[in-house]
Amino acid sequence: MSSTDANGANGKPAQQRFDPNFTQHVIDIMGPATTERNRKVFGSLIRHLHDFAREVELTPEEWMAGVHFAIAVGKISSPTRNEAHRISDILGLESLVDEIANKIIAEGDVDPTSSSILGPFWSPNAPFRENGDSIIQNPNKDGKVCLMHGTITDLLTGKPIPGAVFDIWQASANGKYDFQDPENQTPNNLRGKFRADAEGKYSLYCYHPTAYSLPTDGPSYELLKTLDRHPMRPAHIHIMVTHPDYKGCTTQLYPKDDPWLETDTVFAVKDDLILDFQPREGDPKATLDLEYNVILSPKDYKGKQF
Amino acid sequence: MSSTDANGANGKPAQQRFDPNFTQHVIDIMGPATTERNRKVFGSLIRHLHDFAREVELTPEEWMAGVHFAIAVGKISSPTRNEAHRISDILGLESLVDEIANKIIAEGDVDPTSSSILGPFWSPNAPFRENGDSIIQNPNKDGKVCLMHGTITDLLTGKPIPGAVFDIWQASANGKYDFQDPENQTPNNLRGKFRADAEGKYSLYCYHPTAYSLPTDGPSYELLKTLDRHPMRPAHIHIMVTHPDYKGCTTQLYPKDDPWLETDTVFAVKDDLILDFQPREGDPKATLDLEYNVILSPKDYKGKQF
Repeated sequence: MSSTDANGANGKPAQQRFDPNFTQHVIDIMGPATTERNRKVFGSLIRHLHDFAREVELTPEEWMAGVHFAIAVGKISSPTRNEAHRISDILGLESLVDEIANKIIAEGDVDPTSSSILGPFWSPNAPFRENGDSIIQNPNKDGKVCLMHGTITDLLTGKPIPGAVFDIWQASANGKYDFQDPENQTPNNLRGKFRADAEGKYSLYCYHPTAYSLPTDGPSYELLKTLDRHPMRPAHIHIMVTHPDYKGCTTQLYPKDDPWLETDTVFAVKDDLILDFQPREGDPKATLDLEYNVILSPKDYKGKQF
Repeated sequence: MSSTDANGANGKPAQQRFDPNFTQHVIDIMGPATTERNRKVFGSLIRHLHDFAREVELTPEEWMAGVHFAIAVGKISSPTRNEAHRISDILGLESLVDEIANKIIAEGDVDPTSSSILGPFWSPNAPFRENGDSIIQNPNKDGKVCLMHGTITDLLTGKPIPGAVFDIWQASANGKYDFQDPENQTPNNLRGKFRADAEGKYSLYCYHPTAYSLPTDGPSYELLKTLDRHPMRPAHIHIMVTHPDYKGCTTQLYPKDDPWLETDTVFAVKDDLILDFQPREGDPKATLDLEYNVILSPKDYKGKQF
């Protein structure tokens, strides 16, 4: 609205296409017992929701389609299927929340290993195994075995972190986790915790990971079709690296030649999480070799402030 | 980001707290088969969703609470209970969508009657009744009977609109509509359609309306408590006024002394929808009198453009 519009030619207040006070009114009727945090979160949510509706001039039919979609998301969800979680992943929200919570940009040249989303398949019950052991309990004929190894170091000193726990989990070569595949996999297949040695090193046998599709029978797939997007996640290995004196790092690692890296349906790929598998010679247990090093920042490290 | 920040002092690209390309990437992977409208709607939705999350630095715990809330909304919904509709009402979204779709600001001094939300209780089956008839089929001992009457006129000419249909529905004095109260009310109690006479006039007997509460047993009430808000709707009468040559007007009318006008939980009150009930003398059928006139704009009238 230009300044000449602020008062109409007839001296009456200028009119606008939409009531300029509506959104503030919806925010302002929050009562005095609302916590400061809820006042901030819901105030921002209401403002963005209304700005969205005005910006696209959302129609009653589109609004009602959204209402029906929201109900369908709740209806199909179950203790083993969280469709609301999946919808927020498809819209990039979980990755963004993970970045907000966990991103650290170092003051020096090297950053700590990037975090990525936990996903729904981590288990608190994975067993400790010895360095050099395999997490493959139930071999799959299509699995390509890999020796994975590396060093866990301190961001600031570059020194190894003995005793750091390297927790790994992955789907089998059929694209399914143990939870999802009880006919082929025993509990804790392709899961394990490894403790870094005195030189901060871990090593284990696992599979080269396999890409898989999100379910194609519910509202999340309907949304993907509406957006003309595929339902594929790139192949990935999950890790969670922890030590009492350091900030933990939960992340996912991806083969560099995976075709879905650029268009991951949940937006969980970052440059430093790309893996370079090499052929492995002379090891009867593995045909592939993977070195992946992890950098943790000290518990009280804040990083660059903005 | 100020221009001096665009390149860091060391010549490397300046860093930001969050990845500045993330949101655009989530938008840009929509495929070529997305319709132009969906590209616009979901592009705006994703941008506002992400801006909201960054603005409040939404935590993983808050995000997960939202995921669980969304599932609970779907789970409690049924063919006779639409909790997602109610949540969007509490956040002001249905009233805003109604304004976007229906608001007309006249070029002259008089505006057409404001629209307001339809709500879930309109019925396509309400019977036609004669002017001067009552919509009260099942008297309620607490109901205060009112003769409601008025003229339906053309915005531009001020002339009456004979044959306009005045469709009215309201809750009984216990705060319940016929659908919700089969033990006390027969179908179409407190519903009726009236055809304006040659002078554009309608008249009928109805009840002074009664305020009522939204349900207090589900996620919508949890949200209201979080926002420290009450669950009350002000007393109201619903009307839908139509004629083939005019834009229809669906709206709600409110007694001027209702205590919930300023804080209506669904934000459906507008100034020209406030009613002034008067005592009625010498009518054995009613103790109250209400004149309410409706102004419709012609079907092709655009109003003031912005």
